[in-house]
Amino acid sequence: MKFHVMTLFPEVIDQSLNYSILKRARENGIIEIDAVNIRDYTENKHLRVDDYPYGGGAGMVMQAQPVVDCYRSIREKAGKDLRVIYLTPWGKVFNQQMARELAKEEELVLLCGHYEGIDERALDMIATDFVSIGDYVLTGGEMPAVIMIDCISRLVDNVLGNESSSEDESFSDNLLEYPQYTRPYDFEGHKVPDILMSGDHAKVAAYRKQCSIERTKKFRPDLLEKVKIEK
Amino acid sequence: MKFHVMTLFPEVIDQSLNYSILKRARENGIIEIDAVNIRDYTENKHLRVDDYPYGGGAGMVMQAQPVVDCYRSIREKAGKDLRVIYLTPWGKVFNQQMARELAKEEELVLLCGHYEGIDERALDMIATDFVSIGDYVLTGGEMPAVIMIDCISRLVDNVLGNESSSEDESFSDNLLEYPQYTRPYDFEGHKVPDILMSGDHAKVAAYRKQCSIERTKKFRPDLLEKVKIEK
Repeated sequence: MKFHVMTLFPEVIDQSLNYSILKRARENGIIEIDAVNIRDYTENKHLRVDDYPYGGGAGMVMQAQPVVDCYRSIREKAGKDLRVIYLTPWGKVFNQQMARELAKEEELVLLCGHYEGIDERALDMIATDFVSIGDYVLTGGEMPAVIMIDCISRLVDNVLGNESSSEDESFSDNLLEYPQYTRPYDFEGHKVPDILMSGDHAKVAAYRKQCSIERTKKFRPDLLEKVKIEK
Repeated sequence: MKFHVMTLFPEVIDQSLNYSILKRARENGIIEIDAVNIRDYTENKHLRVDDYPYGGGAGMVMQAQPVVDCYRSIREKAGKDLRVIYLTPWGKVFNQQMARELAKEEELVLLCGHYEGIDERALDMIATDFVSIGDYVLTGGEMPAVIMIDCISRLVDNVLGNESSSEDESFSDNLLEYPQYTRPYDFEGHKVPDILMSGDHAKVAAYRKQCSIERTKKFRPDLLEKVKIEK
């Protein structure tokens, strides 16, 4: 799967996705990340990409021209129209279900705003989706793009090896993960629950399921409501 | 404000927070980021920090000892107990209100899990808060920590200069931001709305407020419900 990231900070995108599982997936050619600098497409001779907002107000606004021309260059290389996701606090809130849907695409474009945002006309012309990673204000769309790429990539075939399984993890069934324990058995007087030492797989599975339900009730009762509705 | 980040990938934390507004805030000494490698605290002679889960299952679990000792070292330097936030999908969902509350702290510890999570006993001993940045599964807590630091730092005095204002932005009043436009007036035949060119500040403000309400109705009607409840 290929991600094109339109940004003013391509090196940040590259560095942030260059560790652990994602690093291996990139090295193995399963995931490709193409961080494109919007500034490379400005027609301004001083390489400016922003200007004051019409109507006044604080901050600067990214201009339409470099953004639109940057996308056109990506589109030309791809040879077809692509889904262009604008990362913005006013988008649809990202979740695991949306990640599963987006993981089916062969190529995706993620558009990162900065400053006070992007000229609305550029969004009207190129953006197909508006996505937010949560109800909080950030400096730019770069970290949200990194978050989305991490999450979506994990759902692409062959990205996760045997070491980890997306099946066991939180939200796969709207239940939170059960508590985990590893060696030593006794850590400063705190011991591992006996049932995990029993070797009885059915009992262990039942215990963990019960722990997941209790944890979900305690921390995220809203998720249990979803389970009921879906059933 | 000082952030201590407990992680297996300190260089990723450092690089991801070294651009734009955060970079300047760090250079000016307003924000300090102390990324601590949990691996430096393991007593294992092969520098291992993880082991198989008791009770079986896929993946590896981070051991209690290096995590707890890493925190103790941070605590000793600070000379007092600190709030320790464990980043986990089963935590309370992060939002702008929580960011405002956390921005009042002088120091915060962010604990990043990796693999299948951290031995529950370590969490019982040191974690004070459990926070999720959204309902999706990621490779580790590193990017969520970066997101939280970005958002919280913007609310610390003197981090945002005149160039930007946290007041105008989405969620400050539970309304989404209005559309922005900048030069040129005519971009490939698409013109800026006339009212923004009128110079009438009251009309511009009313128009923008109306745009914010319409956009919120269209994309995030749930936020408008919150406004009503708060009133």
